[in-house]
Amino acid sequence: MSEIENIKLVIGEQPLFHECRGELIDRLAARGRIIKATKGQVFFIHSEEALNFYVITKGWVKLFRETLDGTQAVVDILPAGHMFGETSIFENEEYPYSAEATEQVEVLSLPISILKDEINEHPEFARSMLKTMARYRSQQDKEIEHRTLQNASQRIGCFMLKLAEQNSNGEVVINLPYDKSLVASRLGMQPETFSRALSKLKSATGMKVRGGTIILENFENLTAYCCVACTSHFPCKEIA
Amino acid sequence: MSEIENIKLVIGEQPLFHECRGELIDRLAARGRIIKATKGQVFFIHSEEALNFYVITKGWVKLFRETLDGTQAVVDILPAGHMFGETSIFENEEYPYSAEATEQVEVLSLPISILKDEINEHPEFARSMLKTMARYRSQQDKEIEHRTLQNASQRIGCFMLKLAEQNSNGEVVINLPYDKSLVASRLGMQPETFSRALSKLKSATGMKVRGGTIILENFENLTAYCCVACTSHFPCKEIA
Repeated sequence: MSEIENIKLVIGEQPLFHECRGELIDRLAARGRIIKATKGQVFFIHSEEALNFYVITKGWVKLFRETLDGTQAVVDILPAGHMFGETSIFENEEYPYSAEATEQVEVLSLPISILKDEINEHPEFARSMLKTMARYRSQQDKEIEHRTLQNASQRIGCFMLKLAEQNSNGEVVINLPYDKSLVASRLGMQPETFSRALSKLKSATGMKVRGGTIILENFENLTAYCCVACTSHFPCKEIA
Repeated sequence: MSEIENIKLVIGEQPLFHECRGELIDRLAARGRIIKATKGQVFFIHSEEALNFYVITKGWVKLFRETLDGTQAVVDILPAGHMFGETSIFENEEYPYSAEATEQVEVLSLPISILKDEINEHPEFARSMLKTMARYRSQQDKEIEHRTLQNASQRIGCFMLKLAEQNSNGEVVINLPYDKSLVASRLGMQPETFSRALSKLKSATGMKVRGGTIILENFENLTAYCCVACTSHFPCKEIA
């Protein structure tokens, strides 16, 4: 497959573009660029003027902001298939966070100006964008709720539940997507807090942790422990 | 002024409707109803089918969700001039939270079906809705960041800063909008945590608290204490 065909395929898979005309995808693809990045490479910095948005095609990308003294607040850690930077069009055209590769990463860079034109000219695209924004918003809403209601162990358990096939029976095996220190920062926890909370979670639910692999005898132990401090019901609609 | 003229005025003041055609405001107003509620009265329950959205014209409304055992997560506490329930159109037409009057409250109830039609038929309205959603999203984003970076005292201080005229000089007087127990639940804190954190904030910044009135010698003491754990600069754009 030619590179441009490949780029069109990647764009077409984004929920944001599902209801779009082929002509938009062609225009985006014609100006798309594949970027290969190594661990720690920065795509853009918080508050910089936003010229491009990105689709991850390989690896994980960390979105974060920093205080003056360099403390990081991790906004999200996104896997392949996810988009970032696109909401800048509503933030005075500045990136609302910084973005950095957490490992070997491949992204597709696309010009943000095309999105702006499209919103103004095609109501069906504005509707797609609204749906995407609404989904983000309800995920954030859940995140705020969990930071109020759940303790650290419950939040780690909930993070694991979202990675699992929620309708499976019997023994459940979950693979953490990245290393534990990244999971800790994704959850806004200090490494020590994370360690202590994980130990507590293990003894409360009988889960086994072997490196990045989690083994559960069954779902019930974990859901009984975590979902009591959540206003949704398991299996939950809010899985990322 | 007739009731319908008054309703039109209230609708027209909402940022969401600033760029809208008068015809939309007329249609909404024709079906608007003023509701007077007393403390504790519930407007709707989380997950109920969403038929109406609301504009607060007097008092404060609490948005919240509850776990099975009745623990509350406060989503927001909104003053007059704010809207709630309108994002249900993106949540399978179910309310994403419950809403309750925190005191004597007056709201304008409006049919949500008109919003849906409008998004489909008028791109300029879809754009307004996108801007509104983007503003919510960046407020939530800040909230999540603060729950990661700020301690309880800094979060109380930040809540106060948002209530103040951020460009004033010399002594600053801030009035809490509702009682301290509501402020605590708005910030997702247990009452004891809130009390302890407020004492710590007082001794760190020299602020005086007389009931619901806060007196600061100057802004600098408070901003030096709070804004060090935030990725924005004071005076901040993100004020609610």
